[in-house]
Amino acid sequence: MTVMQRLRALQLILPEPPTPLGAYVPAVAAGGMLFLSGMLPVKDGHPVWTGLVGVELSIDEGRQAARLAALNGLAVAQAKMGSLDRIKRVVRLTVHIAAAPDFSDHAAVADGASTLLASLFNETDGHARLAVGVSSLPAKMPVELEMIFELR
Amino acid sequence: MTVMQRLRALQLILPEPPTPLGAYVPAVAAGGMLFLSGMLPVKDGHPVWTGLVGVELSIDEGRQAARLAALNGLAVAQAKMGSLDRIKRVVRLTVHIAAAPDFSDHAAVADGASTLLASLFNETDGHARLAVGVSSLPAKMPVELEMIFELR
Amino acid sequence: MTVMQRLRALQLILPEPPTPLGAYVPAVAAGGMLFLSGMLPVKDGHPVWTGLVGVELSIDEGRQAARLAALNGLAVAQAKMGSLDRIKRVVRLTVHIAAAPDFSDHAAVADGASTLLASLFNETDGHARLAVGVSSLPAKMPVELEMIFELR
Repeated sequence: MTVMQRLRALQLILPEPPTPLGAYVPAVAAGGMLFLSGMLPVKDGHPVWTGLVGVELSIDEGRQAARLAALNGLAVAQAKMGSLDRIKRVVRLTVHIAAAPDFSDHAAVADGASTLLASLFNETDGHARLAVGVSSLPAKMPVELEMIFELR
Repeated sequence: MTVMQRLRALQLILPEPPTPLGAYVPAVAAGGMLFLSGMLPVKDGHPVWTGLVGVELSIDEGRQAARLAALNGLAVAQAKMGSLDRIKRVVRLTVHIAAAPDFSDHAAVADGASTLLASLFNETDGHARLAVGVSSLPAKMPVELEMIFELR
Repeated sequence: MTVMQRLRALQLILPEPPTPLGAYVPAVAAGGMLFLSGMLPVKDGHPVWTGLVGVELSIDEGRQAARLAALNGLAVAQAKMGSLDRIKRVVRLTVHIAAAPDFSDHAAVADGASTLLASLFNETDGHARLAVGVSSLPAKMPVELEMIFELR
């Protein structure tokens, strides 16, 4: 199955790709890779969640936010490349999580994005990942993703 | 116009490239890309601004700090490659902003770097960008840039 | 001397490569580069240090944590590639340091990783580096590394 076929099999519908918040573009292809701008849990141009994970938001809400941000990343990749079948794999994902200093469940939140990506790009051997707790993110959103894809 | 011509047309003068703060080098070229070390708002070896954006520093000061850090990045790229005309484009920029948990104007601060870079490298289609709020940066500086360039 | 020879000359013994904390893999090779997942100061599956550098932990403990995380990164690279001699150089290292907003000694902590890597991969001209202070890291560990290697 191709990525597009898997997307349909999982009944996943990609959102509208989010628009940049400043003087940059959603994605740049260079050296056989696709580098995405920071992907956030926005829908129709608005944050779906705001606040710190572990304070205003539960771990499960953080996980849903990571999943939505990853869906936005897929939408950006599709818009840029014409089809997700141009994507060979996810190379690396960094999940920035806005959280208080005593937060420790970064892996659970980040898995909201990783599980989705693994379900689509699993034929090879997964993606590398970092999860980092930061003090704040744009428009007080709880999660921001760094994503690098390898192109076919 | 080449990048060097645009630099002159904009009457931009690159600063001395900053020296590393530890056991690393300012930039590494690999795989057709140039990876820069963290670029900070230093001048003549000293921080120009210190403090958290939104607490000790205004958004406009944060934006100026991001611009100076980007100028330092251009100076490092020029020193490493001999000429900015060896740079094809900015692939990705990450703007780390030292800020309090209630900060939300990351995009405005990051545009201090993005606007400068877009004015020099705009012939293609811009750069990818992340903006992230962090709790602290080296020597209490307000901004640190991650920069990846594509080489010609 | 090769990297493996230098490793032996320095009497460095690589730890067991750490296992991922979620739905990802330790490393991905793509485009002539090796991208590692976030490397943490774990040993035998357990955090060796927890807490914020500058609050619960001293700068020297942070530096030791960065060194252990780098050793874990080398162990992952060796397990993935079969031998560290497949690694040409360290391209970029980002040292995320969990610290309070008034922390300023990021460079000293990050040098715990950089000095180790420079002692093994020094024949060319070092690695690029960022050091960033973050509010929290997985399982309250004090340091997490982003590492990109160039492959031979």
